[in-house]
Amino acid sequence: MQTPKGFRDFLPPQMRGRQFVAQKVKEVFERFGFEPLETPTLEYASVLLGKYGKEADKLVFRFTDRGERELALRYDQTVPTARVLSQYQNELPKFFRRYQIQNVYRAEKPQKGRYREFTQYDIDIFGSSSPLADSEIIACTYYAFKNVGYPRIQIKINDRKILFDTLSQFATSEVPLMSIIQTIDKLDRIDRDGVLEELQKKGLPLETATDALDTIQKVKPTDNLETIMSYSISLGVPKNVLLFDPTIARGLDYYTGMIFEVFIPDLPGNSFGGGGRYDNLIKLLGGADTPAVGIAFGFDRMVEGAEELGLIQTDSTATSVLVTVFNEQTLNTSLSLSKELRERGINAEMFPAIVKLEKQLKYADKKGIPFVVIQGPEEVANNKIQLKDMRARTSKVIPVDKLISELT
Amino acid sequence: MQTPKGFRDFLPPQMRGRQFVAQKVKEVFERFGFEPLETPTLEYASVLLGKYGKEADKLVFRFTDRGERELALRYDQTVPTARVLSQYQNELPKFFRRYQIQNVYRAEKPQKGRYREFTQYDIDIFGSSSPLADSEIIACTYYAFKNVGYPRIQIKINDRKILFDTLSQFATSEVPLMSIIQTIDKLDRIDRDGVLEELQKKGLPLETATDALDTIQKVKPTDNLETIMSYSISLGVPKNVLLFDPTIARGLDYYTGMIFEVFIPDLPGNSFGGGGRYDNLIKLLGGADTPAVGIAFGFDRMVEGAEELGLIQTDSTATSVLVTVFNEQTLNTSLSLSKELRERGINAEMFPAIVKLEKQLKYADKKGIPFVVIQGPEEVANNKIQLKDMRARTSKVIPVDKLISELT
Repeated sequence: MQTPKGFRDFLPPQMRGRQFVAQKVKEVFERFGFEPLETPTLEYASVLLGKYGKEADKLVFRFTDRGERELALRYDQTVPTARVLSQYQNELPKFFRRYQIQNVYRAEKPQKGRYREFTQYDIDIFGSSSPLADSEIIACTYYAFKNVGYPRIQIKINDRKILFDTLSQFATSEVPLMSIIQTIDKLDRIDRDGVLEELQKKGLPLETATDALDTIQKVKPTDNLETIMSYSISLGVPKNVLLFDPTIARGLDYYTGMIFEVFIPDLPGNSFGGGGRYDNLIKLLGGADTPAVGIAFGFDRMVEGAEELGLIQTDSTATSVLVTVFNEQTLNTSLSLSKELRERGINAEMFPAIVKLEKQLKYADKKGIPFVVIQGPEEVANNKIQLKDMRARTSKVIPVDKLISELT
Repeated sequence: MQTPKGFRDFLPPQMRGRQFVAQKVKEVFERFGFEPLETPTLEYASVLLGKYGKEADKLVFRFTDRGERELALRYDQTVPTARVLSQYQNELPKFFRRYQIQNVYRAEKPQKGRYREFTQYDIDIFGSSSPLADSEIIACTYYAFKNVGYPRIQIKINDRKILFDTLSQFATSEVPLMSIIQTIDKLDRIDRDGVLEELQKKGLPLETATDALDTIQKVKPTDNLETIMSYSISLGVPKNVLLFDPTIARGLDYYTGMIFEVFIPDLPGNSFGGGGRYDNLIKLLGGADTPAVGIAFGFDRMVEGAEELGLIQTDSTATSVLVTVFNEQTLNTSLSLSKELRERGINAEMFPAIVKLEKQLKYADKKGIPFVVIQGPEEVANNKIQLKDMRARTSKVIPVDKLISELT
């Protein structure tokens, strides 16, 4: 009995890491006024298919249910949200900012770091075409990463307009604009020679390819981008976090304006999240004409990165103290003590069986519980308690009424 | 574009109610030392099928993926946990208490209060056959409901052994023991006459049916049950919350000992959760021989009930204050103020567009944001701010540096 390929179990230590990052990120989403939204795991297949492109459609998990309905599993959070915006347009405010934290499902070839079920964290602002909305998204993104604790954060920012305006002159019938953009987007991974080689392979003469790359690298930010960056700085994003990079493009076709990607310089490689403005998509998906800007966070990569940088103690537990059970006679004291601790707000686990004390201590050690209390017959008679500090490997006998203050 | 039948969207106001109950319940789970676990949405169909009974198998959503694998959607949290216990038996402690909060999927006929996707909250203790474990589950259940705020809680408790020992003498080849138990379990819904009628319809003579019902109603708690109740009381469960009821049976066949159900007397009708001891199931499901005791919370019913009793304000938002945008000239002041508020830990939303102030106020009203700040040219010049209390419908002009203390 195993999990299917590309699917994962999260045991308590992994869950703790995920919950740590989740809580830090969610706290910032709420700090910025984003409201929670959830959509069902299953949608009518017709809602999802034809929205992501031909290749992606093949990756949508779908099936026919017993009532002959064609259903499909959530593939992303944007298309279901477009449905929500259209289905509840009279209930939702015109300016709507929401966060959505749910799992998505993609029938991709399983490989390292790529899963068939993974959690997406999305924030988006709908209804505003003002650069104020773009900068709220960028500022919220910055603070979310900062709140997790990454020491350095880099946000590369660009405008699709720059790519369109600068590069369309180099497009040919053989190598269309989007194809040139896609190759240039790889600059930080395959460097200058790699980009020129790929463009040539696609059919662009070396001279044109060189010209295209040189031109885009010399370009200046648009007024729109200058405004967004200036607003973002006023909202608290440090100036050196923002980096204008005319070569970043984002994979998805649907962006119409500002685009950005988040990098953690201490963890080189792929981005930790990215987004941008997509003013046509909601209408295209069947909703009302709604400008939109947002980001999808790479949650798995954020958790792995936070673990790598030691920002999370994955061996920890939320349990503060293990109340051991000595024998039948002292049992009621242990039960009452557990009650007392919990009512004082202390996370306390009572050992759920009468076994050798040694076994109970081993259990606390394995689970990473920092404190253990022991009340044997002698301690009970004297109204005392033995308190073991499992990390410091020390132990002391104290009056019962001192325990709470020792633990808080 | 609609959600498929039996599936739901949760818009922000509903999400707030769900998050309120979720947070209160989770807090108590951790207070009792339960650790989080998650399993994938999809399992190999062979892991799930044949585990829930023939009728339930039909309700499992399943399909063949493009790699010809038979997959199925999570139907409950017990069977996947049995797989986890077997797959990671060397990593997990022998005594293992976990909570699991995930959605499950059942292809049931959609009807009022019954959904095809719903959230389950499970806590279980594995590895202990001691009544201490039973009472930890009962106490944690009590405190979880108490923490949500229900004014009165009733836990009906029984022992499967009582049902087996008392009723097997009345079973016939036509009406087997489990069938008698299932009918008697309905006593609080269809009353005495209803039970006798149903037993007769099933083929039990009226005299035998009456005898069976009279006998079970006069029975006394087992020693095991007395011990569990006494431990639970020591752990803080008020005596009058626990009610021995020899007629409750729980639907599922797999319970082997103590069984219980939670009722909220102010909200008559079905139970809000139920559980019990199931010492054979994990082995039956392919795991090691592992005693187990736990409960599944009826999360949807808990949320609906909490709303009905006014325990949640569903019109509320996590946002404390809306920072309005007056015009281009005062914009930077609004941006800096948003930054300041957020860095002080106040949930602040900056209006994401420059529109008429009236529209911005309407937005705050609709979303239920309690405070709005306005900085027009005059206020900016005098380093002041207009603070509107949207609930009290009052407004005052105060120095900017007084704002934080007004809002916290």
